Amino acid sequence: MQSPSDIKDIVRPPRHLSDALAAIGTATASSELSLMGIRDPHIHGPMPLKSGRSVAGPALTLQMMPKREDLYGANEYDNPELQLHRHVLYPAQAGDMVVVDARGDMASGIFGEMMLTFFAGRKGAGVVVDGCIRDSAKARELDLGIWVKGVTPNYHAQTSLIPFAVNVPVACGGALVMPGDIIVADDDGAVVVPVALAPELIERASEHAEWEEFSRFRLSQGGDLRKYYPLTAAVQDEYIAWRNAQDKA
Amino acid sequence: MQSPSDIKDIVRPPRHLSDALAAIGTATASSELSLMGIRDPHIHGPMPLKSGRSVAGPALTLQMMPKREDLYGANEYDNPELQLHRHVLYPAQAGDMVVVDARGDMASGIFGEMMLTFFAGRKGAGVVVDGCIRDSAKARELDLGIWVKGVTPNYHAQTSLIPFAVNVPVACGGALVMPGDIIVADDDGAVVVPVALAPELIERASEHAEWEEFSRFRLSQGGDLRKYYPLTAAVQDEYIAWRNAQDKA
Amino acid sequence: MQSPSDIKDIVRPPRHLSDALAAIGTATASSELSLMGIRDPHIHGPMPLKSGRSVAGPALTLQMMPKREDLYGANEYDNPELQLHRHVLYPAQAGDMVVVDARGDMASGIFGEMMLTFFAGRKGAGVVVDGCIRDSAKARELDLGIWVKGVTPNYHAQTSLIPFAVNVPVACGGALVMPGDIIVADDDGAVVVPVALAPELIERASEHAEWEEFSRFRLSQGGDLRKYYPLTAAVQDEYIAWRNAQDKA
Amino acid sequence: MQSPSDIKDIVRPPRHLSDALAAIGTATASSELSLMGIRDPHIHGPMPLKSGRSVAGPALTLQMMPKREDLYGANEYDNPELQLHRHVLYPAQAGDMVVVDARGDMASGIFGEMMLTFFAGRKGAGVVVDGCIRDSAKARELDLGIWVKGVTPNYHAQTSLIPFAVNVPVACGGALVMPGDIIVADDDGAVVVPVALAPELIERASEHAEWEEFSRFRLSQGGDLRKYYPLTAAVQDEYIAWRNAQDKA
Amino acid sequence: MQSPSDIKDIVRPPRHLSDALAAIGTATASSELSLMGIRDPHIHGPMPLKSGRSVAGPALTLQMMPKREDLYGANEYDNPELQLHRHVLYPAQAGDMVVVDARGDMASGIFGEMMLTFFAGRKGAGVVVDGCIRDSAKARELDLGIWVKGVTPNYHAQTSLIPFAVNVPVACGGALVMPGDIIVADDDGAVVVPVALAPELIERASEHAEWEEFSRFRLSQGGDLRKYYPLTAAVQDEYIAWRNAQDKA
Amino acid sequence: MQSPSDIKDIVRPPRHLSDALAAIGTATASSELSLMGIRDPHIHGPMPLKSGRSVAGPALTLQMMPKREDLYGANEYDNPELQLHRHVLYPAQAGDMVVVDARGDMASGIFGEMMLTFFAGRKGAGVVVDGCIRDSAKARELDLGIWVKGVTPNYHAQTSLIPFAVNVPVACGGALVMPGDIIVADDDGAVVVPVALAPELIERASEHAEWEEFSRFRLSQGGDLRKYYPLTAAVQDEYIAWRNAQDKA
Repeated sequence: MQSPSDIKDIVRPPRHLSDALAAIGTATASSELSLMGIRDPHIHGPMPLKSGRSVAGPALTLQMMPKREDLYGANEYDNPELQLHRHVLYPAQAGDMVVVDARGDMASGIFGEMMLTFFAGRKGAGVVVDGCIRDSAKARELDLGIWVKGVTPNYHAQTSLIPFAVNVPVACGGALVMPGDIIVADDDGAVVVPVALAPELIERASEHAEWEEFSRFRLSQGGDLRKYYPLTAAVQDEYIAWRNAQDKA
Repeated sequence: MQSPSDIKDIVRPPRHLSDALAAIGTATASSELSLMGIRDPHIHGPMPLKSGRSVAGPALTLQMMPKREDLYGANEYDNPELQLHRHVLYPAQAGDMVVVDARGDMASGIFGEMMLTFFAGRKGAGVVVDGCIRDSAKARELDLGIWVKGVTPNYHAQTSLIPFAVNVPVACGGALVMPGDIIVADDDGAVVVPVALAPELIERASEHAEWEEFSRFRLSQGGDLRKYYPLTAAVQDEYIAWRNAQDKA
Repeated sequence: MQSPSDIKDIVRPPRHLSDALAAIGTATASSELSLMGIRDPHIHGPMPLKSGRSVAGPALTLQMMPKREDLYGANEYDNPELQLHRHVLYPAQAGDMVVVDARGDMASGIFGEMMLTFFAGRKGAGVVVDGCIRDSAKARELDLGIWVKGVTPNYHAQTSLIPFAVNVPVACGGALVMPGDIIVADDDGAVVVPVALAPELIERASEHAEWEEFSRFRLSQGGDLRKYYPLTAAVQDEYIAWRNAQDKA
Repeated sequence: MQSPSDIKDIVRPPRHLSDALAAIGTATASSELSLMGIRDPHIHGPMPLKSGRSVAGPALTLQMMPKREDLYGANEYDNPELQLHRHVLYPAQAGDMVVVDARGDMASGIFGEMMLTFFAGRKGAGVVVDGCIRDSAKARELDLGIWVKGVTPNYHAQTSLIPFAVNVPVACGGALVMPGDIIVADDDGAVVVPVALAPELIERASEHAEWEEFSRFRLSQGGDLRKYYPLTAAVQDEYIAWRNAQDKA
Repeated sequence: MQSPSDIKDIVRPPRHLSDALAAIGTATASSELSLMGIRDPHIHGPMPLKSGRSVAGPALTLQMMPKREDLYGANEYDNPELQLHRHVLYPAQAGDMVVVDARGDMASGIFGEMMLTFFAGRKGAGVVVDGCIRDSAKARELDLGIWVKGVTPNYHAQTSLIPFAVNVPVACGGALVMPGDIIVADDDGAVVVPVALAPELIERASEHAEWEEFSRFRLSQGGDLRKYYPLTAAVQDEYIAWRNAQDKA
Repeated sequence: MQSPSDIKDIVRPPRHLSDALAAIGTATASSELSLMGIRDPHIHGPMPLKSGRSVAGPALTLQMMPKREDLYGANEYDNPELQLHRHVLYPAQAGDMVVVDARGDMASGIFGEMMLTFFAGRKGAGVVVDGCIRDSAKARELDLGIWVKGVTPNYHAQTSLIPFAVNVPVACGGALVMPGDIIVADDDGAVVVPVALAPELIERASEHAEWEEFSRFRLSQGGDLRKYYPLTAAVQDEYIAWRNAQDKA
């Protein structure tokens, strides 16, 4: 088990990258990354506790491991400072995401209301757990994005897991997350964006957006999918007219 | 892979059958079908993205298959008209249901917001996928029933599946769906009603309904289950009195 | 299959125990029980159909078994009094919980709207099923807690299960439930509290509560986790001042 | 937990029924039972530890339950007579089968070499566990049929289960087993035969057997499936000639 | 359900392709195909009933579908010629492989001893089922490769599946199989080789083989992995000397 | 991804500990460890490729991670020295065990015949993989213990995993393995023994063994379980007589 004194903070990417990615959302991030060579950047499993929130920020990581009674015992219960799941939260800054490799375990509530309240108080952006949290009724009321596979009344080290290391590479929902990677999360789930790929991804995503609003509008009126999505030359004039009308209004 | 030019439209059953089945709902449809010899007509897995909607309509079907790079490649991405998941939507009429055999895969978002907006624009009744859609935040806002196992940011052919055939028999959630079968869907999930069995099913379902409202009312007051459900001779007079009072009001 | 005449009612623990446990909630109940030697009292799987309800009460139990056509047949359909899933509800009193061992089966709706309406009419506190109910749209409108793994249109004995015994020890979600055990259930799920352990559990849970409200408040303002949770000596005076201010207000 | 003094022995069906069923085998037993109205008598999951053994005998049953530390503790370890998994073996007679509802758990070795050696010493026919045994290397050397889902080094009550009751109805591999039911087991797995259905099943199975040997022989030579299986009138003379030749040899 | 009269035979690739692929084996076939752009040609799940057999041949395909009692009933039982699982075997030639999409179902034995004996009599190379066969004791004795996920005493249409179409594209173990594709199978499982890719695959596979025997020999003696695999220039002379010695012997 | 130059060798415990544990076997190791406070030391999932081998040795560890194309690419294929799954084998000594955290993935063959031949050539004791190897036909012929969940033709980095770090703490089959822990493996599976607990475990295990042979013998003759296991005072004289007779023979 990692010693708290060995924990390193992460290197945070420029904030404008996270902001742009939060606006782009996971669906576009995932499909563009796949066209850029990352087959499946989706963190499978964790879903939002509450719908309607779209965030992005750099990953603080927590690695849970299978419990072993000779390595984790009464000391950790008596001395909270030995509990590593607290230490992933200590360096939290506004806009950060916490990603937990909970190994898919559904019997361990990695964070409870106090931990989550502290992280929300620090203006954390969100938590992504390949497993569960607890105290979900209170957690829902926080101004914090929470992506989990489920909830449980059990505490983090009650049954099968122990917190083992902080800000190391982790696997979460079948995706490899390096500390400092940008995590984008919304109603479709969470996606890992390697920092080095973020600028190209943001640029690619910006190309689509202009005519899509027009297409969506026409399709919602019963317009022909073949003509409006993707936008064809046949309806280019119609689109320009619509855009001009929009601009005036 | 089926050629788009080989796709056939479905034969639609009379609309009044679908309307009656939407009113009956899945619970009664499933139990009556089971008494008529269809052991389990339930499409297991897909659940409503939003609760509170009850629909029925004939099935347009889409068969997804495991991805094979020698059979599906760059052409499909460049030429949308080669993408068969669009073709299942082209012939859509008001009240139609689209059923997708996504083989239970949770890493493929069969439809995104543009496809779903088009289908809603055509007054489609609903979509049932043994897997996922994407762009779920926007999809929830559409006037369209959506039954899925989950959502994902990935697009339909990003990881493991490709669209393979339209309006062929498919399996969905452990149920065999023939093109044109009536799909009934509500908060309990989705059920397949073979067209030939629909008239008898509708007739059987109509027999129960009359006294059930009275029974429910009495039970909600703490009435005795043994007397009120099913309705016994002992409370027949009480029921008639209640019905008369209802009629006056 | 048990004969209805062999069913025994349960011995109910004093009501104040259930009331206290409902106030404590599942998260504290589970963690304190684990410190008292019960490793995992959580009933895994069942989740609330509707969030926001916290209840506790003694367990009436229903054991479902794999269907066997030589032991359960047409008689049960014709004569409702032979259906044991009704008999678990007959002795229901206000505040009771019904726990069903549905063996995790997702193709059987153990109770439908009539059974649930009756139980709500009797002021039952809640139903916990390691499986499904049906008629979920109507069930959501009842004043009744419902914890399930899912919903289905199928009725209880339609596919793979039959009701087999009432008020016998059952397994539900990986937990052993003895008739009369206190079941606590809220948004985090359901927990089994052995009656003999309830008084100590309640006493232990009362110790924490006082300063936690203060800690939560400070953490929500961005306070330091190390100082406020658990509450340290360094902020003891601050806490007392806050509490005094609260008392005045 | 059942008290050892409350355990009842089973009522054993006539031995000739078990002997006939062992000769018939599970494949024919299952298909004929399905034609007699028992849809799926197969105990799913348990497979033979060693292939090549075909047995049948009445079921002694053991019900395991999820572990609860307040109900099972140090006493059971100190006093072997409190361990119910021993008690299912005490009444064993030659030809008996032991069926264990281990709830599919793969982390509990219900029996180890000593228990299995004792049962083999009593000429038990076989053990069917919806879970694991331990000491498998030694178990393979015993003259005893063993059908399990797997093996583990863990002992029966080490992790998640405790023995709870003996000779009560149990579920095993999705099948309901009543104490005294005849269990048939071979390389295809294990099947439950209700005693009352055994005579008809045996009679039905005897009808097929005569010409099947001839058909198998012809098919192995490249004969036409359409002619030889089932045996058609066109090859009736050929069959009679072959049979006569067999009788002479 | 397909009519038997609509079944088409497959187009068989040149026999030498299958022979070469059987010699190459699945491990090399899979890794070379992956380098040629087919990410995962492995048919996941089916494993050999008996180890030690390596075969390859063109795929006859059988599509099973979820059972629907209105589409498959007593007629099929009375008239074997309506049972499509027989029809996939009728056109079998020496060296053919039969691939069954059994949808992963573990409660249906697609073929029994008579069907398998017939196919072995026709010199079929093997059967690959994403599910089960029955009569496994007899099946093991046949001169026929059998790759399955398991075995069961149940017959093919006993519980949840029905045979639905022959020689159509199917999914098997997460792989898309077109009729006539070459299936390679050995102790590592089964792999799909598209006919058009077979010649290049065979050529690529032939390049490795020469020095591998030498490397294996040296490694088995404790030789340095860095030097001998892949073969480095440093041990080129040593290899040539060894090869010359081999040639003399 | 770890740089090969950062890999550390493990600290090996005294060889006599491993030798004693191999003789004790996994069943006794697991049950005694559980009595010493380690609830479940079993590595769930991996089973022997070939039965009959019992080994123990210190763990070299390999951590696989979900594949990410930006972190693992063509270089690793071209330059074998960059492939970390080779590096876990380089420091192998006689009697070592290699433990791989393959995250349960069934589509990646971590080692093939060349790697396994090298490790066998170095007199490695065994390999434990929470996943698959490939080239299983050749692997079975090696003088090497191999515990896996299955086999596949795919190579280690073909589909979803990449080798990520060597001789770091890993999870394997739900157990935490520290580099240098003693792994015991036989027909019941594999067990982790923390080095610090090995001496006490060995001492405890030695206490049982003496009279067990006698008990097993009597039980195999039909002796009474109550008298012979555990050995009771009533048969103490009988045991001594038997032991004396054994000593003479």
